[in-house]
Amino acid sequence: MKHLLTLRETSVDDIRYLLDTATAFREIVARPIKKVPTLRGRAMITLFYENSTRTRTSFEMAAKIMSAEAINISVAQSSVVKGESLKDTLLTLQALRADCIVMRHPCSGTPEFAANHLGIPIINAGDGRHEHPTQGLLDLLTIRQHKQDIAGLTVAIVGDIAHSRVARSNLWGLTKMGAKVRLVGPRTLLPPDADQLPVEVFDDLRTGIEGADVVNVLRLQTERQERGLLPSLREYSRLFGITPHSLKAAKPDVLVLHPGPMNRGIEISADVADGVGGIRSAIEEQVTNGVAIRMAALYMLMGASSSGSVEA
Amino acid sequence: MKHLLTLRETSVDDIRYLLDTATAFREIVARPIKKVPTLRGRAMITLFYENSTRTRTSFEMAAKIMSAEAINISVAQSSVVKGESLKDTLLTLQALRADCIVMRHPCSGTPEFAANHLGIPIINAGDGRHEHPTQGLLDLLTIRQHKQDIAGLTVAIVGDIAHSRVARSNLWGLTKMGAKVRLVGPRTLLPPDADQLPVEVFDDLRTGIEGADVVNVLRLQTERQERGLLPSLREYSRLFGITPHSLKAAKPDVLVLHPGPMNRGIEISADVADGVGGIRSAIEEQVTNGVAIRMAALYMLMGASSSGSVEA
Amino acid sequence: MKHLLTLRETSVDDIRYLLDTATAFREIVARPIKKVPTLRGRAMITLFYENSTRTRTSFEMAAKIMSAEAINISVAQSSVVKGESLKDTLLTLQALRADCIVMRHPCSGTPEFAANHLGIPIINAGDGRHEHPTQGLLDLLTIRQHKQDIAGLTVAIVGDIAHSRVARSNLWGLTKMGAKVRLVGPRTLLPPDADQLPVEVFDDLRTGIEGADVVNVLRLQTERQERGLLPSLREYSRLFGITPHSLKAAKPDVLVLHPGPMNRGIEISADVADGVGGIRSAIEEQVTNGVAIRMAALYMLMGASSSGSVEA
Repeated sequence: MKHLLTLRETSVDDIRYLLDTATAFREIVARPIKKVPTLRGRAMITLFYENSTRTRTSFEMAAKIMSAEAINISVAQSSVVKGESLKDTLLTLQALRADCIVMRHPCSGTPEFAANHLGIPIINAGDGRHEHPTQGLLDLLTIRQHKQDIAGLTVAIVGDIAHSRVARSNLWGLTKMGAKVRLVGPRTLLPPDADQLPVEVFDDLRTGIEGADVVNVLRLQTERQERGLLPSLREYSRLFGITPHSLKAAKPDVLVLHPGPMNRGIEISADVADGVGGIRSAIEEQVTNGVAIRMAALYMLMGASSSGSVEA
Repeated sequence: MKHLLTLRETSVDDIRYLLDTATAFREIVARPIKKVPTLRGRAMITLFYENSTRTRTSFEMAAKIMSAEAINISVAQSSVVKGESLKDTLLTLQALRADCIVMRHPCSGTPEFAANHLGIPIINAGDGRHEHPTQGLLDLLTIRQHKQDIAGLTVAIVGDIAHSRVARSNLWGLTKMGAKVRLVGPRTLLPPDADQLPVEVFDDLRTGIEGADVVNVLRLQTERQERGLLPSLREYSRLFGITPHSLKAAKPDVLVLHPGPMNRGIEISADVADGVGGIRSAIEEQVTNGVAIRMAALYMLMGASSSGSVEA
Repeated sequence: MKHLLTLRETSVDDIRYLLDTATAFREIVARPIKKVPTLRGRAMITLFYENSTRTRTSFEMAAKIMSAEAINISVAQSSVVKGESLKDTLLTLQALRADCIVMRHPCSGTPEFAANHLGIPIINAGDGRHEHPTQGLLDLLTIRQHKQDIAGLTVAIVGDIAHSRVARSNLWGLTKMGAKVRLVGPRTLLPPDADQLPVEVFDDLRTGIEGADVVNVLRLQTERQERGLLPSLREYSRLFGITPHSLKAAKPDVLVLHPGPMNRGIEISADVADGVGGIRSAIEEQVTNGVAIRMAALYMLMGASSSGSVEA
């Protein structure tokens, strides 16, 4: 495994290896003094063409815990605005001796393009509507912690599936690990290619989460409404919002996930978000697991061998 | 002491401990090779909802000298824009395993809100018109260095008191340490609640700084004029500007402070700023002391014990 | 040598020392684990009043490889907007205990101004149309690697010379090291003071690069066209674009350089940029050499002795 671009194309063995490694790293993340020399002298560059607090910070924390250097580039400050081609930007970062590039981009497939043109590992930190593999992995890790085995579980992903890279990485990761995946949302927000995916599709929340072991609630991009894909936020909330009431259709010990940032009161109620009244919400655990997963990914891609020499 | 939110609510013992610790750290700050392993493996996150060079950089330098990791989040790059609640942003940073959050926010009380909802230490790096405790502490440290004992001194704070968190942290810190505090400024810029504060109030510069041991000159937010609180910058400068001439009313060895950034020629003349002609200006010393104070605060809050585990 | 402000005023001995040191550091840059303790406990602050990915990242990588702290300040986040004088901003950074300031500014001469007012080393990372000495040095390093000796070479700098600090640092560095320098471009983009420079000037590409050992292709600021200095990008490309065809006028083993970011298809064709068909293009090598040169500059300025104490 040279890059982490998608879960669709990651083998079950590699997914399992990443989850096992992250499980071991969770112990380091939880230490009061969380610093190991594992990746000393390696440099990760984050190249973000979209804003993000949590993902960028999570990678930065992961790198620093393992003593790697973290250098952040966000588009506004970059010379990208000057019209340089993406390929040249990437070649420059490689020539600056980055050992790994963590990349977020609004266009699907950009990290794969990068991987095809560079000799150093690329980690996809979210590309368009395509994939967000480290989010998928941290969701798997969180589910495995709570449910022991992923195989055989029923996982309902609820919300704006059509525009969600989180949904896509989840469905590939989950089905590879043996779970049954349901996509639940209003028809306007379900993916047009759903019949080609290994999933069941529901446009009714109650049926969609009936008997589910896990409900993964997606963030609603409130811009969707403006584009006419939603009648109103209130109606969305009434029909698809995850509340203590709507959760009653799922299994009694249903686990609730959300990738954040949350719109409380829209796609998820405050009670569910905060795990009030015995509801099993793992939203903060997901964040901590994200650090462990990114440590595992950086370790897998930068730890084993040299990233090669650029000497002529 | 679990957080550093205000000087109003910090005990005299804690203030003294912070000043003594910072005095010891000044020696480290002055070293050619300024690096100690004290906070290795701890991570400070700065979360700034307002721009700042000096405060953010000062905390970053303080953390790095003590080998802590420093991760910076500024609002423009953050997902805050996406409508996430402040509480959720803070819980996310905690779950990312920050050991301390240094927070600047335009709304008074926000750091206290953070402290109430998180299990990790919060340092207020300036909240609205409320407080800026590390600035108050570095001013105390600078005064103590020059005057030995703060008790019994007369300190005049001059300028836009009403809108100044620096003034507020100063007046609480100074009165706790036994100084007499005078607030001096045009009536439109004096605080409406001045009669409830342990201070004397003056709307005439000459009387206000008469016999003062220390004059702490506040930055004039030039926007104030546009809002009708000032007739003109020129008039403000003539009536309240600190110049070699106006300083004659104070004690001959008066110490001049300014929190920066300065508007030279408005609230402070260049001669005073630069300490020309025997004037004792400590403005650059304040900046260096600021690094030592922030080291002391980080050490006090992150150094002694673990920030706890987020393991379920 | 206390600062690195220009190549015009850097001695041949210092240039040679920097190139030799960078050559030694190239070996460290190429290591899989690229970390040496050389500048541990030193702090570099980058202060950029103009956007830049490659230069800022290159300095950051250089600092981190040598274990120095790197603190980045870009104008948008800084209190500069608040109207503080440049001198006060610089004095503040010095008082924060920066050991070196790396500065980019749109106004020529600003780094020299900084050097005149501070007691710590200043590195010019590009000032207006004036100089960009580390770029000049990395070009020299790249040429020396390929051609062994710089003395006696003919180097053609092609493009928008008038507005280029890269051209200026190159011509001073190259002539000091014994090369013959030609400036080649349309008359509107040639410098008005060319007759006072140690160069030959050509407004015809073919004649300008005839027999050249090195062609250094400048980036065309496409804004120039809007200001009426260029008839059209297409015409510029036809007359001054470096292509396999136009290169035939140069020596068969001509080395092609470009400081980046490139406008492929305008000032340089993709074939030349990528070194297709035996063309010797060293554009990525330049980037890697840039890290080594910045390590050498930081080492020369921060490594030998203390940056002094700011203790009163």
